Amino acid sequence: MKCEIIVIGDELLIGQVTDTNSGYIARKLNPIGIEIIRTTVVRDREEEIASAVEESMQRAEAVIVTGGLGPTNDDITKKTLCKIFGGKMIFSQATQDNNDALFARLGKEMNTLTRSQAMVPDCCKVLPNVVGTAPGMMFKRDGKMLISLPGVPYELQKLIDDSVLPMFERCATTDKIFHSTRIVTGFTESKLAIYLTEYEASLPSTIKLAYLPKPNLIRLRLTARGNDAEQLYCDMYEATLKMDELLGENIISYEDLTLEEILINHLKDKDYTISTAESCTGGGIASKITSVAGASAVFMGGVVAYDNSVKVNQLGVEEEVINRYGVVSTQVVEQMAKGVVNKFKTDCAIATSGIAGPSGGSKQKPVGTIAIAVYCNGKVQSRLVAIPSANRMRNIERFIDLALYDMVLNLRTIK
Amino acid sequence: MKCEIIVIGDELLIGQVTDTNSGYIARKLNPIGIEIIRTTVVRDREEEIASAVEESMQRAEAVIVTGGLGPTNDDITKKTLCKIFGGKMIFSQATQDNNDALFARLGKEMNTLTRSQAMVPDCCKVLPNVVGTAPGMMFKRDGKMLISLPGVPYELQKLIDDSVLPMFERCATTDKIFHSTRIVTGFTESKLAIYLTEYEASLPSTIKLAYLPKPNLIRLRLTARGNDAEQLYCDMYEATLKMDELLGENIISYEDLTLEEILINHLKDKDYTISTAESCTGGGIASKITSVAGASAVFMGGVVAYDNSVKVNQLGVEEEVINRYGVVSTQVVEQMAKGVVNKFKTDCAIATSGIAGPSGGSKQKPVGTIAIAVYCNGKVQSRLVAIPSANRMRNIERFIDLALYDMVLNLRTIK
Repeated sequence: MKCEIIVIGDELLIGQVTDTNSGYIARKLNPIGIEIIRTTVVRDREEEIASAVEESMQRAEAVIVTGGLGPTNDDITKKTLCKIFGGKMIFSQATQDNNDALFARLGKEMNTLTRSQAMVPDCCKVLPNVVGTAPGMMFKRDGKMLISLPGVPYELQKLIDDSVLPMFERCATTDKIFHSTRIVTGFTESKLAIYLTEYEASLPSTIKLAYLPKPNLIRLRLTARGNDAEQLYCDMYEATLKMDELLGENIISYEDLTLEEILINHLKDKDYTISTAESCTGGGIASKITSVAGASAVFMGGVVAYDNSVKVNQLGVEEEVINRYGVVSTQVVEQMAKGVVNKFKTDCAIATSGIAGPSGGSKQKPVGTIAIAVYCNGKVQSRLVAIPSANRMRNIERFIDLALYDMVLNLRTIK
Repeated sequence: MKCEIIVIGDELLIGQVTDTNSGYIARKLNPIGIEIIRTTVVRDREEEIASAVEESMQRAEAVIVTGGLGPTNDDITKKTLCKIFGGKMIFSQATQDNNDALFARLGKEMNTLTRSQAMVPDCCKVLPNVVGTAPGMMFKRDGKMLISLPGVPYELQKLIDDSVLPMFERCATTDKIFHSTRIVTGFTESKLAIYLTEYEASLPSTIKLAYLPKPNLIRLRLTARGNDAEQLYCDMYEATLKMDELLGENIISYEDLTLEEILINHLKDKDYTISTAESCTGGGIASKITSVAGASAVFMGGVVAYDNSVKVNQLGVEEEVINRYGVVSTQVVEQMAKGVVNKFKTDCAIATSGIAGPSGGSKQKPVGTIAIAVYCNGKVQSRLVAIPSANRMRNIERFIDLALYDMVLNLRTIK
């Protein structure tokens, strides 16, 4: 089934907010055979919402609209949809009851605006929103369906999981879609594409190969699409098998995992614990690791040694080493890694010190330079990497990725 | 000037990648009077790209296309645009030279695929990409302009800054657009809207008010749009002045800043230093603080005390206190805050301990419960907050926001 998403809100088109809702919707709907063929972001203007709705309703069998359901004047989605589908606004007692219960739970009081959230178009089916005041709405026309959901991510997610997904699952879908991802290292994107030319040409027409490059890593995604589920499974099985044979040791993950998830899996496999000693990455590595549920099985803790005094006093880095080699040096990060292992009694450790910028660089060590040490089982390895860039956020993200990558590669060499 | 963005890539529509490019483009183009009226995300399919291009070219004077310029088979934007604008592919020596220099700098070797990046439509103006192999391209038709840019964020950003922005600046634009944001606390969205009803009604037609609620905070955005720049400035000045009078002490920022930026500004104003002691937030608070350039002036470092042994051994939390009150308690976080202040000799500290989930909750302390302590100038304040939710990432983000918020509010009370 073909579906389109319409995202409503000025804040998205002026770059004040990033849309993550459409990604969530796609990840939930794809596995049950619903394909998002287009996403359109429009402003909070009646005529622009209306034309986007009409266009999407022509191309797709289902349309999901997000946002613009707040109680304030700038939100006009509900009224606009009511007009488009030719209804009038009526009071929904069920929505009012839901909202009363919600406010009672939060210990808040209703006012005229929050009460107005219970007014809904009489031409829609209300989808209850148990975590917010704006209900979801479902409209139908000419055998097609439009679903309107609030833009607040956790309200939308709850409605997708509780109402939308079960509804779509009941519809008969024609095409099946599924993805299979491998994460590959040791290739540039173009080298990998050349290496896989013959393989790609040999794929059946139902399977498509895509390359998603990241620094040091490439995600290879096979997408199978068709109506003969059994044949599709066979084709996909063969295609992944062949790919795995071709890429062998270069595959560092057989699932679409993040680097931190891959790292934690390796640590669990080997029954190792880990700690972190971070300067320029400022807690970002620890934060990534602890974002994974179950991290506590392997992660003990870390020291964010931002100021040099912390490196010296907490991690035992020698002042002389800092003065001699500079604070961004393999010598310093090796001492940081050893220091945190001593302190936290872990098997492994990651240590970083670098120049995130935008200022603070030198000719030898420009902004974008990082020293990384990875410690495992009594051995420490380190390197100094420079990818000059003045973009602080990009540098920090890259530093974190590089450090996690070094640790994963290091763990892979241990049998 | 009206502009549209077309984002190309299957990975976006299956939710594997989140589009941040369109936000970057909007933030850069808005201040020079270019308004993004719609963003369309389409798949890597010739007919879908072509129809999106034709539709956007009708509505807008300029169209920016991102993505689909990689050297692999799944990327078809370049060929498709060449067809749409009726050209043929030719070899661009300038692009080849650019790419040769890039590869030499990175110590990599060219291959057939990377060499193919120098083939460009003869009907476009090439916009050099000094940080990647895919050049930008500018096409013209009927006085309108289409610009194609690579999807890799830093390549796109460099091209926007170096080529696209100067190009647009040279065009005469009609409308001026600017935004003014205040960050407000102490109101729910609907209460604030009721409080500002009269104010909103009194705004001139050129000025629009929008509400962007976040937990504990609301961003209020005034947008001025019109062709009489001088009048617009006056209107905006008056509108913000009136708003500031109405909201007074409830305004915690007069700029569109993040909580961590507001925190750092407060600390700098008072000449205070800060450290962090994090359990459930896993380094996320330190990471947010250090994401701000210049954080080193106030941030010394932190301890990620994930395992209880780290809380006891590194921060001096008493085991008896953990056993008596539980590790998620105001008593424990107060000891954590004092412990890290002792260790790092800072004026202020933030400490957290909570249950991020998805498992680990109890009846008294469900998943989504956090204890936060903020320490300032010898005094420590703490609270236990429970907003039950099983979503780990959402809980962690919320915990980080709550802790930063508590610290900011605490600093505001100190004169």
